[in-house]
Amino acid sequence: MARFGECDVVVAGAGFAGLSAADALVREGLTVRVVEARPRVGGRALTRFLPDGTQLDLGGQWIGPAQRHMADLVHRHAVRTYPTPSRGAALIEYGGRRVEELPAEAAEVLAALDRLARAVPPDRPWSAPGAAGQDGRTFASWLAATGAPPAARDLVGRLVSGGLLSAGPTETSLLETLFYVASGGGTEPLLGYEGGAQETRFAGGAQHLAERMAAGLPEGTLRLGQPVEAVEYTPRSARVHTPGGAWDAARVVLAVPPVLAGRVRYSPALPPLRAGLLQRMPAGTALKTHAVYTAPFWRAAGLSGVSQSAEGVLTETVDNTPPDAPRAVLTGFAYGAEAVLLRRQAPATRRRAVLDHLTALFGEEAGAPDDFVEFDWLAEEWTRGCFSGHLVPGAWTTFGPSLREPVGPLHWAGTETAVRWNGYFEGAVESGYRAAEEVRRSL
Amino acid sequence: MARFGECDVVVAGAGFAGLSAADALVREGLTVRVVEARPRVGGRALTRFLPDGTQLDLGGQWIGPAQRHMADLVHRHAVRTYPTPSRGAALIEYGGRRVEELPAEAAEVLAALDRLARAVPPDRPWSAPGAAGQDGRTFASWLAATGAPPAARDLVGRLVSGGLLSAGPTETSLLETLFYVASGGGTEPLLGYEGGAQETRFAGGAQHLAERMAAGLPEGTLRLGQPVEAVEYTPRSARVHTPGGAWDAARVVLAVPPVLAGRVRYSPALPPLRAGLLQRMPAGTALKTHAVYTAPFWRAAGLSGVSQSAEGVLTETVDNTPPDAPRAVLTGFAYGAEAVLLRRQAPATRRRAVLDHLTALFGEEAGAPDDFVEFDWLAEEWTRGCFSGHLVPGAWTTFGPSLREPVGPLHWAGTETAVRWNGYFEGAVESGYRAAEEVRRSL
Repeated sequence: MARFGECDVVVAGAGFAGLSAADALVREGLTVRVVEARPRVGGRALTRFLPDGTQLDLGGQWIGPAQRHMADLVHRHAVRTYPTPSRGAALIEYGGRRVEELPAEAAEVLAALDRLARAVPPDRPWSAPGAAGQDGRTFASWLAATGAPPAARDLVGRLVSGGLLSAGPTETSLLETLFYVASGGGTEPLLGYEGGAQETRFAGGAQHLAERMAAGLPEGTLRLGQPVEAVEYTPRSARVHTPGGAWDAARVVLAVPPVLAGRVRYSPALPPLRAGLLQRMPAGTALKTHAVYTAPFWRAAGLSGVSQSAEGVLTETVDNTPPDAPRAVLTGFAYGAEAVLLRRQAPATRRRAVLDHLTALFGEEAGAPDDFVEFDWLAEEWTRGCFSGHLVPGAWTTFGPSLREPVGPLHWAGTETAVRWNGYFEGAVESGYRAAEEVRRSL
Repeated sequence: MARFGECDVVVAGAGFAGLSAADALVREGLTVRVVEARPRVGGRALTRFLPDGTQLDLGGQWIGPAQRHMADLVHRHAVRTYPTPSRGAALIEYGGRRVEELPAEAAEVLAALDRLARAVPPDRPWSAPGAAGQDGRTFASWLAATGAPPAARDLVGRLVSGGLLSAGPTETSLLETLFYVASGGGTEPLLGYEGGAQETRFAGGAQHLAERMAAGLPEGTLRLGQPVEAVEYTPRSARVHTPGGAWDAARVVLAVPPVLAGRVRYSPALPPLRAGLLQRMPAGTALKTHAVYTAPFWRAAGLSGVSQSAEGVLTETVDNTPPDAPRAVLTGFAYGAEAVLLRRQAPATRRRAVLDHLTALFGEEAGAPDDFVEFDWLAEEWTRGCFSGHLVPGAWTTFGPSLREPVGPLHWAGTETAVRWNGYFEGAVESGYRAAEEVRRSL
């Protein structure tokens, strides 16, 4: 096995978590190598451009006003941003009706959720009062027990489990749901466009910021196309194996999704509780589709392009047209059981199902886009699902305390380890800085 | 990369599933290579002998009368068996009391479970009436809704989720629990010693039968110390990469636990639903301890050594003394939250907690064994948890249909894919034969 050489810290993964960790460590004067499986940086931020220049963010794409680390990075790297188009009316499909405001009975369920979430400390959800009971109960069970009308439960289940946790309400515990809501500061900032986590987009796409961050690292820091296959470690050092060779380092920051961290071969094997946790954090199953049109025809009808549906294959849509773009983009999201159902279909059938949903919302024109682009992160070797991983029922109160606990010289980053804005770019950056700080103090 | 050569079928894993598949394929006249990560066969069957010859089964160890495939193998390989010692009284710790028979209120909960399980077809649990609701609800939630007294719920939760599914009642859905009960033909055959799945043991240990099966394969079939690292495949062939080199084959049978199957690098990546399923089948967290004494002192007190506890660190104990053994063995099992709690403790503290539990049940002598042996499968690189993997809440009705679906030339075996006796050696053998039959028909 070839040896690449030695360094102070190897960071595995060049998404926002890994790039942030590397940046912080380099600023401490440490020698850092970032090894990334893909031939590109950005992780779950992936921007593609159609031949005419229309920008499509196939992965994460938004930031909100309360996300300080991201705001700092945007400023530092002089990346331009613009507001998500939001003029016009939103459409909410609800119990067979179409309304423009969230119905009061659904708002009440969200309010009840927010009240419960306030008692959950996002840095240690397992210590919340009633944590064991909340961890042993699915969000679907809690919804059913609220006594809210079925349409309100369906809508909240789809928006919260789907739109936030990229899962179905049957897949996550009440505690995981409350943790996530607490981590983002409440359902309103999490679900909102203006004033919320979907307020702002990046000119040039989200991947552009990651590229700027990578460009700011010292020459030779970043090694692309080098997936971490194995990590050997002692209490004070580690050897990181990639296809081309191995790096020796004093510390390692694993800044990859939990599903991928669990696939690395560790020697010695990870401690039982850490190994068990990594088996209990499946990635989300969100499916994001982009319909590209000559013009944003929905605006003329007074619609914003934003929709939220308690039924049908898509839970959400949004006008994803960049400013000055040659064409207009309507983006749809499917989650949980709907996302699984769509994946069972042949591509043409799936496209038809999505376009039928858009047509019902926005009229005939929506049914015949110039282009239709889908991208399935579940089939991506080096991600294995989007938006983010979640702890399965029962896992927080048993394996949860291992989430950020270093294992000898190994430190854990990635948005799934974040306390604030878990699941977002902001959480990824927080986790990178936190892991870097752990490393600094340990050296 | 060195090339080992070509064969008709590569079987990954030399546990009971892989060995059974290989045996069936060899009988069809096919050239088979079994690649096994460990330097031994048997998978989750692992027998160790203390210096004085006392036999300890650290993994699976029992077979029951309804397990036909195992009975055939025992007969064919002329392996001796003996009944699990069961003379004397069982102890049931229940609501602060100690009783000898399962209390009626707990039996009623088991009966209710059996009634529900009868409606779940174990070959397609997702099609059961009410499957979606049962899949979106934890077993803990169902228990809480039975209205049974807390002690009955605790006991049944620990015996069924723990003793059968090697998890906690908060970790598995009602549907997964019903599937498992249906797969084993009901709670009585599953939980029982005489007449049940724990009726009979193997002379020489469970690993011995696996060794006999391996010895029956043609020379050169078995390759030990060869973990499968990557599988490249086309619709009609595959190349299986191991550390020493690669095998080309027409078909591959993956006969490893789901957690390990998910860690192999596939090229192309597995289809989204199969990849998603493998993220949603964590291994069990059972902890098995062996206290070794000069003599089976509990027998003199009229006790069988069998206990079932609704409280305390151990859920079950059993007299695990082999016939003609120089010493006596009392084996304990911890599951779910208790097993996690024990793992958080230092070895000496854990040993003390287990021995205190045994002392409360069987008296002073139990507190001072000659030997105390524990073995944590969760820390085993090539298993990652025992007894078996389970589908997390919400997974059966979404990803479940992918459980046995071949992916091109790749076929899936392992006890977690079994229809009958899922989670047992019997299920492993069934799955091996089924995968071999799929391969035979496809060639």
